[in-house]
Amino acid sequence: KEDFDPKDHQHLRYNPLRDSWVLVSAHRMKRPWAGQIEKPPEEHIPRFDPHNPLCPGNTRANGEVNPDYDSTFVFQNDFPALQPNAPDPDPDQHPLFQSKAARGICKVMCFHPWSDVTLPLMKKEEVVKVIDKWAELVEELGATYPWVQIFENKGAMMGCSNPHPHCQVWASNFLPNEPALSDRSQRSYYQKHGEPLLLQYAKQEAEKKERVVVESSYWLAVVPYWATWPYQTLLLPRRHVLRISDLAKEEREDLADIMKRLLTKYDNLFEVSFPYSMGWHGAPTGPHLNQDNSHWQLHAHYYPPLLRSATVKKFMVGYEMLAQEQRDLTPEQAAEKLRNLPQEHYKNREN
Amino acid sequence: KEDFDPKDHQHLRYNPLRDSWVLVSAHRMKRPWAGQIEKPPEEHIPRFDPHNPLCPGNTRANGEVNPDYDSTFVFQNDFPALQPNAPDPDPDQHPLFQSKAARGICKVMCFHPWSDVTLPLMKKEEVVKVIDKWAELVEELGATYPWVQIFENKGAMMGCSNPHPHCQVWASNFLPNEPALSDRSQRSYYQKHGEPLLLQYAKQEAEKKERVVVESSYWLAVVPYWATWPYQTLLLPRRHVLRISDLAKEEREDLADIMKRLLTKYDNLFEVSFPYSMGWHGAPTGPHLNQDNSHWQLHAHYYPPLLRSATVKKFMVGYEMLAQEQRDLTPEQAAEKLRNLPQEHYKNREN
Ligand SMILES: O=P(O)(O)O[C@H]1O[C@H](CO)[C@@H](O)[C@H](O)[C@H]1O
Ligand SMILES: O=P(O)(O)O[C@H]1O[C@H](CO)[C@@H](O)[C@H](O)[C@H]1O
Repeated sequence: KEDFDPKDHQHLRYNPLRDSWVLVSAHRMKRPWAGQIEKPPEEHIPRFDPHNPLCPGNTRANGEVNPDYDSTFVFQNDFPALQPNAPDPDPDQHPLFQSKAARGICKVMCFHPWSDVTLPLMKKEEVVKVIDKWAELVEELGATYPWVQIFENKGAMMGCSNPHPHCQVWASNFLPNEPALSDRSQRSYYQKHGEPLLLQYAKQEAEKKERVVVESSYWLAVVPYWATWPYQTLLLPRRHVLRISDLAKEEREDLADIMKRLLTKYDNLFEVSFPYSMGWHGAPTGPHLNQDNSHWQLHAHYYPPLLRSATVKKFMVGYEMLAQEQRDLTPEQAAEKLRNLPQEHYKNREN
Repeated sequence: KEDFDPKDHQHLRYNPLRDSWVLVSAHRMKRPWAGQIEKPPEEHIPRFDPHNPLCPGNTRANGEVNPDYDSTFVFQNDFPALQPNAPDPDPDQHPLFQSKAARGICKVMCFHPWSDVTLPLMKKEEVVKVIDKWAELVEELGATYPWVQIFENKGAMMGCSNPHPHCQVWASNFLPNEPALSDRSQRSYYQKHGEPLLLQYAKQEAEKKERVVVESSYWLAVVPYWATWPYQTLLLPRRHVLRISDLAKEEREDLADIMKRLLTKYDNLFEVSFPYSMGWHGAPTGPHLNQDNSHWQLHAHYYPPLLRSATVKKFMVGYEMLAQEQRDLTPEQAAEKLRNLPQEHYKNREN
């Protein structure tokens, strides 16, 4: 009987955060690709564009003028999906036609005054300012809202409609699906094992090493055992931390450093500004601030779409949408590839 | 106090099949779009291409020669994600590093010998043959496998790498995430209400009418109340049917007809061959054949990516991946738009 080899034999892996499975079929990388070729990410972005509503001093859609900012800059999204006031839907509902009120606030946060930089190309001190602002927004909006979602869509391939380095922060009066799922999973693991799921996980991965991409004194970035996107990573603190606002000064500095290192690896993989969606998950806020959240561990998810090259992405389509997510290389193969890439950004090497 | 209007006020809607919520923010359609523009779907496909491995008489990657088929044609996928034999992973596992064996079979099914037709442009009798073949494959593979997933990725935008009209059929030795979720939801609804969820739903929608796109004596296609993709639809039989193989002759003919009508509306929306991923969900098979599946109702999901035009799709990215799915027009607006489109295909009108 043949020995099991994850690189040759398809198998399922369990995602304990989402309580679901992913199909790993690494042998599928052998098939030729004759499908859609994406536009490669834009490489020549002007530092300042007088028509870009995110640049310092420019006028936005609603007529407001941006200040001449020189670090981060936060403003209310001009086309928010969540607004603070919206009337409640009719409460008298059939079980198959249920709706609920949704209220919240959507902010945009520019990382830097220049359009031609990205986090890995920014100075460490500049990235620390981004982290400080994230922490501030979680405190401010989290004072009342149960969930504050910080997320970055990077690159046109990920629906980002503006090349200026920025992220978004959407706070809501409800716990969205994904954090609700993650809350449930972390809680039940904690009840069963007496230790936070992701703290236990980080310890194991730090020992096993095979899925580690970069590590530092306070942080660890791995391609998780259950990754669905080809080069998906999970960024975790080594100590038990509930929310980004709980990070100490040295942990923030170390985070800026490991983020720069991780994102440099990403950019170096196909020598392009690597597209992804990323976001932070921490213990819920608002009314949850007074509850026990010991089962929670702060973490960031990075979901990059590229699979084979700068222009061939992984399509999560038919089988993935209707049955189950499927990946074409093992998480260990992805981690090894990223780990072995140079630490220096290809753009800096060019000069 | 302002009256609630779903077109103006963001709200959440409950998806009873997936036990999750979608954020509906219809006022967001007002924002301008400056993001990625997709390549419009290819409109000029040769009827026969000597290099296309799906055309009759051509040689495939593994050296096999296709027959000179004149209707449907089924063969084993040359790069299958699931193979019938794969050894079991090591059973001794930590709860955070769990894997399971995955075995199965992947087939490709051509709908027609010509590359330049699609289901809405095929003759009704030809579509009936596709349905008959689907039923046959569910019977054949479902004799042993617990799940047989029929799905079609249509268009390069949906990761389809071959323009020849075809779908795929992947059978597995496990119940994948999505059907497992749907099985659970339908079962608990049935236990509580004594009627299958989707049978009850179809009745209600047939009365309400506002989300109906097309209907016939045996079938109903609606933009579901909880749709996440802009023009997502759900195709349902009016009577209680467990599996596609249970459909009577007249129900298959009627299905061919309503599929042609639905897909014609789709193509007419932006006057392009409309991209989507679609698939069938019916009661599980294999060992489940001997169990009570009264809670199940056969249905097809259509997930099309386009939002604003033939070249602007909806991006399910940052907030959607990390928090919750969000849509920019109400399901009622989408249904009305589709319903009011001409019944005749724009390509037939041109001639
Ligand atoms: O099998 P195909 O058509 O080559 O591949 C397509 O469908 C599969 C099943 O949904 C996906 O896993 C692939 O990412 C997609 O490109
Ligand atoms: O708000 P933006 O950047 O215009 O929009 C982008 O991110 C949103 C949140 O993930 C998505 O809903 C949009 O589909 C996407 O294009």
